[in-house]
Amino acid sequence: MPNGSDPWESRGERPIQDFGIFKASEVERRGPHGKTGRFVILDAPDWGVVVPILTRNGARYVLAVRQFRHGSGTVSLEFPGGVVESGEDPERAAARELREETGYTAGRLTLLGDLSPNPAILTNRFRVYLAEDLRPEGDQSLDEHEIVDVREIPEEEFLESLGGPGWDHALMLAAAFLYVRRRG
Amino acid sequence: MPNGSDPWESRGERPIQDFGIFKASEVERRGPHGKTGRFVILDAPDWGVVVPILTRNGARYVLAVRQFRHGSGTVSLEFPGGVVESGEDPERAAARELREETGYTAGRLTLLGDLSPNPAILTNRFRVYLAEDLRPEGDQSLDEHEIVDVREIPEEEFLESLGGPGWDHALMLAAAFLYVRRRG
Repeated sequence: MPNGSDPWESRGERPIQDFGIFKASEVERRGPHGKTGRFVILDAPDWGVVVPILTRNGARYVLAVRQFRHGSGTVSLEFPGGVVESGEDPERAAARELREETGYTAGRLTLLGDLSPNPAILTNRFRVYLAEDLRPEGDQSLDEHEIVDVREIPEEEFLESLGGPGWDHALMLAAAFLYVRRRG
Repeated sequence: MPNGSDPWESRGERPIQDFGIFKASEVERRGPHGKTGRFVILDAPDWGVVVPILTRNGARYVLAVRQFRHGSGTVSLEFPGGVVESGEDPERAAARELREETGYTAGRLTLLGDLSPNPAILTNRFRVYLAEDLRPEGDQSLDEHEIVDVREIPEEEFLESLGGPGWDHALMLAAAFLYVRRRG
């Protein structure tokens, strides 16, 4: 009897369309039930976010960014992050995004997790880093259509508010899960 | 000076391609910086997952499902869930997916959160429910290409393993964040 732990066998793949930020392909695969199906998947560059923790007078703050997002058509509060460029080391990409979006650099970056943002449709990885020993190094350095506000939010307030309106980016809650588990 | 909390103004939208499980569109929007850009977004039906908690002899277990995923090309351990059908109530969809994938029904469903799976590119919502008072009601009832194993995993083992190989679906960690915060 076929079971869910059996891998499917690839029978080919054809590109459908390149959208720049991701490419759509159709894969043909044969499953453990002996049937063949065709499935649309999206190939995107890897993504990463940084959970930046500022410590001041013994209190912890999260450095978060606010920006308009075109999928939801709403303003979203998030951890800094973005796309890993082709050939770029993921940790360097995380450090770069932190610097560009917030103006801060981190004395220490720790990988909290290496996830799939959505294995049903996406081929790429989503890495989560903890950033500590933060130091302001200058102004933001943003792309043409990036307009990003930086906010320092007391850690407990941040963790309690996550999931509410404007704080509802699911990948950020995944990052928060990894952070809270590590922090204990 | 433009800031990240200012919404962008829509200047139009054109469909690009309908892939069945999602549709790609291009939106044109004018930002608070006075510039206009074009952005590719994906319109998908809403998604939902259920965190099903079984209690037996005072111990808690998570009812998880294992299945091959075509984006990652790997087997993934997940909470039961799926797509909200057109016109379907999201809570009914969650109850239906739980029943179809595991054979269990829930005496009580509680909304834990209403998230965006990825506001940068997706327009849809991702709802997370807690399912309690679970009762086995019969066999699974799966679609043609669904092959799903059901596993009962001790809750602490599940929460510690989340994020590791095969347990790395980021949206499931987002659901776990909401569950752990509610459980306390």
